[in-house]
Amino acid sequence: MGNTFGHAFRITTWGESHGGAVGVAIDGCPPGMELSLEEIQRELDRRRPGQSHITTPRQEEDRAQIVSGLFDGKTLGTPICILVWNKDARPEAYADFRTIYRPSHADFTYQAKYGIRNWQGGGRASARETIGRVAAGAVARKLLRTFSDTHIVAYVRQVHTVTANIDPESVTEESVEATPVRCPDPDAAREMIARIEAAREEGDSLGGVVECVIHGAPAGWGEPVFDKLDADLAKAMLSLPAAKGFEVGSGFAGTRLKGSEHNDPFTSEGGQIRTRTNRSGGIQGGISNGQPILFRVAFKPTATISREQESVDEAGNPVRLVARGRHDPCVLPRAVPIVEAMAALVLADHFLRQRGQCGA
Amino acid sequence: MGNTFGHAFRITTWGESHGGAVGVAIDGCPPGMELSLEEIQRELDRRRPGQSHITTPRQEEDRAQIVSGLFDGKTLGTPICILVWNKDARPEAYADFRTIYRPSHADFTYQAKYGIRNWQGGGRASARETIGRVAAGAVARKLLRTFSDTHIVAYVRQVHTVTANIDPESVTEESVEATPVRCPDPDAAREMIARIEAAREEGDSLGGVVECVIHGAPAGWGEPVFDKLDADLAKAMLSLPAAKGFEVGSGFAGTRLKGSEHNDPFTSEGGQIRTRTNRSGGIQGGISNGQPILFRVAFKPTATISREQESVDEAGNPVRLVARGRHDPCVLPRAVPIVEAMAALVLADHFLRQRGQCGA
Amino acid sequence: MGNTFGHAFRITTWGESHGGAVGVAIDGCPPGMELSLEEIQRELDRRRPGQSHITTPRQEEDRAQIVSGLFDGKTLGTPICILVWNKDARPEAYADFRTIYRPSHADFTYQAKYGIRNWQGGGRASARETIGRVAAGAVARKLLRTFSDTHIVAYVRQVHTVTANIDPESVTEESVEATPVRCPDPDAAREMIARIEAAREEGDSLGGVVECVIHGAPAGWGEPVFDKLDADLAKAMLSLPAAKGFEVGSGFAGTRLKGSEHNDPFTSEGGQIRTRTNRSGGIQGGISNGQPILFRVAFKPTATISREQESVDEAGNPVRLVARGRHDPCVLPRAVPIVEAMAALVLADHFLRQRGQCGA
Amino acid sequence: MGNTFGHAFRITTWGESHGGAVGVAIDGCPPGMELSLEEIQRELDRRRPGQSHITTPRQEEDRAQIVSGLFDGKTLGTPICILVWNKDARPEAYADFRTIYRPSHADFTYQAKYGIRNWQGGGRASARETIGRVAAGAVARKLLRTFSDTHIVAYVRQVHTVTANIDPESVTEESVEATPVRCPDPDAAREMIARIEAAREEGDSLGGVVECVIHGAPAGWGEPVFDKLDADLAKAMLSLPAAKGFEVGSGFAGTRLKGSEHNDPFTSEGGQIRTRTNRSGGIQGGISNGQPILFRVAFKPTATISREQESVDEAGNPVRLVARGRHDPCVLPRAVPIVEAMAALVLADHFLRQRGQCGA
Repeated sequence: MGNTFGHAFRITTWGESHGGAVGVAIDGCPPGMELSLEEIQRELDRRRPGQSHITTPRQEEDRAQIVSGLFDGKTLGTPICILVWNKDARPEAYADFRTIYRPSHADFTYQAKYGIRNWQGGGRASARETIGRVAAGAVARKLLRTFSDTHIVAYVRQVHTVTANIDPESVTEESVEATPVRCPDPDAAREMIARIEAAREEGDSLGGVVECVIHGAPAGWGEPVFDKLDADLAKAMLSLPAAKGFEVGSGFAGTRLKGSEHNDPFTSEGGQIRTRTNRSGGIQGGISNGQPILFRVAFKPTATISREQESVDEAGNPVRLVARGRHDPCVLPRAVPIVEAMAALVLADHFLRQRGQCGA
Repeated sequence: MGNTFGHAFRITTWGESHGGAVGVAIDGCPPGMELSLEEIQRELDRRRPGQSHITTPRQEEDRAQIVSGLFDGKTLGTPICILVWNKDARPEAYADFRTIYRPSHADFTYQAKYGIRNWQGGGRASARETIGRVAAGAVARKLLRTFSDTHIVAYVRQVHTVTANIDPESVTEESVEATPVRCPDPDAAREMIARIEAAREEGDSLGGVVECVIHGAPAGWGEPVFDKLDADLAKAMLSLPAAKGFEVGSGFAGTRLKGSEHNDPFTSEGGQIRTRTNRSGGIQGGISNGQPILFRVAFKPTATISREQESVDEAGNPVRLVARGRHDPCVLPRAVPIVEAMAALVLADHFLRQRGQCGA
Repeated sequence: MGNTFGHAFRITTWGESHGGAVGVAIDGCPPGMELSLEEIQRELDRRRPGQSHITTPRQEEDRAQIVSGLFDGKTLGTPICILVWNKDARPEAYADFRTIYRPSHADFTYQAKYGIRNWQGGGRASARETIGRVAAGAVARKLLRTFSDTHIVAYVRQVHTVTANIDPESVTEESVEATPVRCPDPDAAREMIARIEAAREEGDSLGGVVECVIHGAPAGWGEPVFDKLDADLAKAMLSLPAAKGFEVGSGFAGTRLKGSEHNDPFTSEGGQIRTRTNRSGGIQGGISNGQPILFRVAFKPTATISREQESVDEAGNPVRLVARGRHDPCVLPRAVPIVEAMAALVLADHFLRQRGQCGA
Repeated sequence: MGNTFGHAFRITTWGESHGGAVGVAIDGCPPGMELSLEEIQRELDRRRPGQSHITTPRQEEDRAQIVSGLFDGKTLGTPICILVWNKDARPEAYADFRTIYRPSHADFTYQAKYGIRNWQGGGRASARETIGRVAAGAVARKLLRTFSDTHIVAYVRQVHTVTANIDPESVTEESVEATPVRCPDPDAAREMIARIEAAREEGDSLGGVVECVIHGAPAGWGEPVFDKLDADLAKAMLSLPAAKGFEVGSGFAGTRLKGSEHNDPFTSEGGQIRTRTNRSGGIQGGISNGQPILFRVAFKPTATISREQESVDEAGNPVRLVARGRHDPCVLPRAVPIVEAMAALVLADHFLRQRGQCGA
C-alpha cells in the first residue's frame, strides 16, 4: 500500500529496481493537452545515473514508453501509463546481500515489514523507484505551464559543509544546468565538485540540501486544514529516498526571530496586494499567497559507500561489509529534477482541486 | 476540502473559531476498546489557552462531548464524534479585521481562495481548529496503548535562541509537565520562561522547536513509497498552524556528515537486531525499524503581536494595525500536546494499515 | 470504516439511533453559496417518522442544527457540520433484544463483525442513520440548483404488487407530494394506501420500488471506468437500509430486448444532439448524455413486523419473538426523499469532479 | 479520473482498446503469497474474444506479463503490475466512426465529456478495458483462496427470454464451463446457444442476466454505512460495460413479498447460528452473515450490431450506419469471468479491511 499520491492529479507507481519494469499511471490529467514523449524523456535524462562524471558511473538509458492516454499527440483525459524497462540488472552483484542487512538501507525494515524482499538490488527502496515520479512530474509540469503560468526551479544549495550564496528568486534553469552539480553559484559549485570527487576517492558519500523556488503560482492553492500546500510539499519531499528534513520559507532559522521581525507586512503594488518580505515562503495558512514559493529539502549522505562497515546477517551474526564496484558519492545533483517533479505533482494536484471548488 | 486525515484511522474535523462548535469524527477505531471522556478531556486541558501564566490569558473551558460511537464505556467500531462548543466568541473584538489583512495570518489567503471568510476570528485558520485533532489524538493514543506498547512524548526543545540540553530517549512525561513551558531541561526552561515573559511585555512573540520521541513502535510500520512513516509525520506536522519545518533523526544537521559517519551499524542484542546509533530517527526506507522514532518541528513566532504593524485593507489602502487585548507570546508549550496528538494519529493509522496487510 | 461517501463533495456521517446525536460533515461544498437551515429542515421533515397516518406513529421532531461552515447565510468553503439530537430514546423498549437476533435485521451481523453492538435500537443499522444523508442531500440539491439546472424527483412506483402507471419524464414534485404514499398515480396511490393499512392491521410489512428521474444534468458527468455515474448511483442506493436492487434505464426488462430494439438512435433537434428513445436511462458508458437520468431502487418489506417470529438468542437457543408497539408497515414513502438525497450527493460530486477536470 | 477501485486491495487500470497496452497495478496484495502467471492467464483466456463459436470471431491472444511485485514466485507486498499488449489494432476498421456517434455506444458521451476521443475503437469504453480487471481479479481470487476459504462462481442465468432453471447453491465451476454459453442448465444452454446463433445471423445482439454465488465468506465482511458489501458489489457490477441492473438475494422479486414471508428466521445448527432461508442473499445490514452471497447482474444487448441503424455525425447530420465485419451477438458468456473478477476484488478488499479493523 501507499503507492498512490495526489487526489485530483493522482499517480500510482510500481516496479522494483531489478526485474521487469518501473512505471507510473497518471489519473486526472485533463484532456486535450499536448504532450510528447520528448518532454518526459528530457526529465528522465536529468535524473538518470551516469549523466556526468560526478554521479554514479552506472549507465542506465531509461527510455520512457507511453502505453496509454495519448492520441494524436494530445491527452485523452484517460490514465497515462508510462513504462521504463529495467536493463542493467546484475542480480549477482547483490548476491552477498541476500542475508545481510546493509547499514541505513531499507533491507532490514522491508524484511521486517513484508517478511520477504527482492534482495537483487534495493527493490522499491531503490532510487530507481523515482523514475515513475519524474515521468509523472514532467506531465504535471506541462500541465502547470499549459493551464497556468507556474514555473518550478530547484538547485543544490548545500553539499556537505559547502553552502552556496544564492538569491532564490533570481535563479534560472540555465544557471542550474551550467554545472554538473546543479548549483547556480559557480564558486560553491567548484568546491562542491571537489568535495564530491574527494568523497568518491575515499569511498565515502555526502549529503546536502536542495532548495526549490516556484514562480507564478496564484494565490489560493492549498486545502486546509490537512492538505495544506506546505503539508503536501513536506510529505512529497519526505517520501523521497534519503530525505531527512523539510522547511518552507524561513524554516528552522525563522524560529530564532521575533514575531515583529518575522511577520511579512502587506503592501499594494499597482493594485496588487503582496507582501514586502517573504519569510512565509509564499504560503500562509496552508494556501499560496501569490509570492514565490520557497522550500528546502535535507538529504542525508547516501547509505551506499565503498568503505568497510560492520553489520549483521539475518541471524544476527556480525559481518564485515564491503560494497563492490563504484558508488554514487552524492545524489544531490540528481535529486534536483526529482524534487522539481514532486513539487510539480503537488502543485498540479492543488491547481485542479482549486479549479473544481471555486465558488458561486 | 482537505479536512480528512488518515486512511485506516481516519479523522474529519470541522468548525470555525467563532460560532457553533468545533469537532471531529473518527472512523476506523477498532471496536471493544475502553474509552472514557476523561482521557479525551485531559489532552484538551493540556492544549487549552489560559492553562498557565505564560500562555494566552483567554480562558476557554473546552469541554468535550462524545455524541456517538461509544456504548457502555467501549468503542462500537462506528464513528466516534466529539464536539466542543465555542463559548468565548466576541466577534466585536475582530470587527476591525473585517476588511484588513493581518500580516502573516491567513486572512488574505482565505479571502483569495474562497472569496469569503469568517472575519470574526481566525475561522479555520485559528489554533482553535486543533481541538478536534487533540481529541482524536487522545483516542489514537489509547489505541496505541491498548493494542501495542507505543508511547509518545514531546517537549519544547528550543524557544527563540534558547536551546535545551536533553537526551531525547530518557525524557519522561513528568519531566515535561514539571514546568509550564514543557521543557524537561530545568535551566533552559527557566530561561525560556523569562524570554516569553519579556516578549509579552514587549508585545512581541517567539517561535521555537518541539521535539518528539516515540518508544515501543515495532519494526514494520510505514507504507512505501508515498505513505512512508516519516512522510506522513512530515505532512501531519506541517499541517499545524505556524509550523515551518520538520526533520527526522539527524535532519538538517545530518547533511554535514559523511556516509561513513552517518550510517547506523546494525548489531544484535539478546537475539534482537538493532542499530548501534540512531541517526535514522527510528525510520529506514519509510518504515519503522524498532528504534525510538525521533523528529522535530519548527514553529515560527506567532503572527499575532501587540505591536503596531503596517498592512493593507481589502482595497489595498495602507493601514496601521494594533492588536488589542493580550496575546499569546509563545505557542510552543501548547504545541506539545498537539504534536503528540498528530504523531498518535499517524502511528495509529499505520498500525492498523500494517495489521490489515501482513502476509501469508 | 465506510462512513464517508463522495470525492469532491464528500460527506462523513455518524451516530447511533440511541444516545447522543446523528450528524454529518460535508467537505467540498463551494464557498459563497446561499444556504438556510430551512432548506435542510424541509427535507428532514419529509423523511421523519410520524409525518402521515401511514408511516410509523413514532413522532421524531428531528430538528437540524448547523454548527460550522456557514457565515451570514453563505457557505464558507469549509466543512458544514449538521447535527440532529436523539430525543425519542427508549432503550427499555429494546431490552428484549439485548441477546436476541431479530430476523433480517443487522443485529447478528453487527455482533459478528464488531463483537459489540448498541442493542438499544438499531445502532448504525437503524433508518435513523439516514438523517445525515438527507441533511447533506439538501445541501447537494441546493448546489445543483445554484450551479447547474439539475432537478431531482423520486416517487413510489410500486408497493407490494401494486404498480403505478406513470410517465417518468412528466412527474412533478407536487404530484408526488399530493398523497401520503408519494405516488403520483392517484388510483395506484389509493390502492397502495389500502394495502399499507391492511398490512399494519396484520402486523406485517410491505416492500416496493422507488423510481427517480433527474432532469437538466448536462452531458459529461461520470468518471469511467470505475466511478461511472450509474455505478456510483448503484452504490449510493444499495447503501440504503432495506435496498435490494438497482436498475438504470431499461434495467432488467431491457435484457429481454434485442440490440436493434434496445439501441437509442441519435437525432438532432434544434442543433442539439439527443437520443430519440431513452432506454439508456440518460447514461452511456457511465457518463450522462444530457437526457433525463432514470433509475429504480427495490426495497424489501421492512424487517420489523408485529407478528410472532422464530429466532435464536446469542447462545443459539430458539426463541419466539414478538415486536411490541406499532411498527412502520411500509418505508417506501419515507424512502422517496432519501433516494433523492443520495442521488443529489452523487450528482453534486460528479458535477464538481467534472468541473475540476475539464480540458485545455 | 475514476480508474482506481478498492481501498485495502486497490487496483488502478489504464489502456485504450487500440494503441499501446492495457494493464493494471494492484496495491495492497499481502506479501509472501504464491502467485503464478498461469493463474492470471487462465482467467484472461476465459474472458478473451474468439474462445468459442458463439462469441466474437476476433482472435485476441491477450498474453499477460507481470512486470513488478513478484519475486521467486511470491508476492512482495509491493504493487503488482500486469500488462497485456494490444495486437489486433485495425484502426482503419473504425475510420467511419471518426465523426459518427454509434447508437448506445459511449462515443457521444466521451466526446461531450473530454472534447476528444480515440475513435480507433471504443477507447476506454471498449470491453477490452476489462482485461485489467480480470487479471487483478485472478490475484484477488488467489488471495481469497489462500487466506480464507471463499469461492466464487458465476454463470449465465438468462439470455434474451430464456431463463435457466438452477439451484444457485449447488452450481459447480465444471457445470458452468461445460457449455460455451456458461449456463449450468443444459436444456436452457441449448436454447440460449440457438438464440445467440440466430441473433448473429440476423445481425442482432442479445442481453441477459449473470448470477453469482459466493461460498465460504465468513460473517463480518462489509463496512457500513456506505461501503456495505452489497453497495460495493453493486458499484463493481454497474461499472461493467453494458450492465443495467443489480440485485442481491430476493432483489426486485422480493418487493412483492410481505415481511412475514421475506424475513429469514435464525436457527442454530451444530452450534452455528445461521438463517433457515436466504432471501437476504448472504448480506444483512451491509455485512456478510456467513450464508452464500447471491446476486444477479443485468446486461443489455450489446450496442454493436450489424443491422443498419440511424444516427448522426458530430455536426448533427443524419447518417445511416452499418457495422462491417462480424460482431459478438451476446457478451453474457464472456461476462461470467468478469463478474467473478469484480466480485473477487470486492471481497478481497473487504477481507483485508475487516482484518485490519477487528477489535480489542
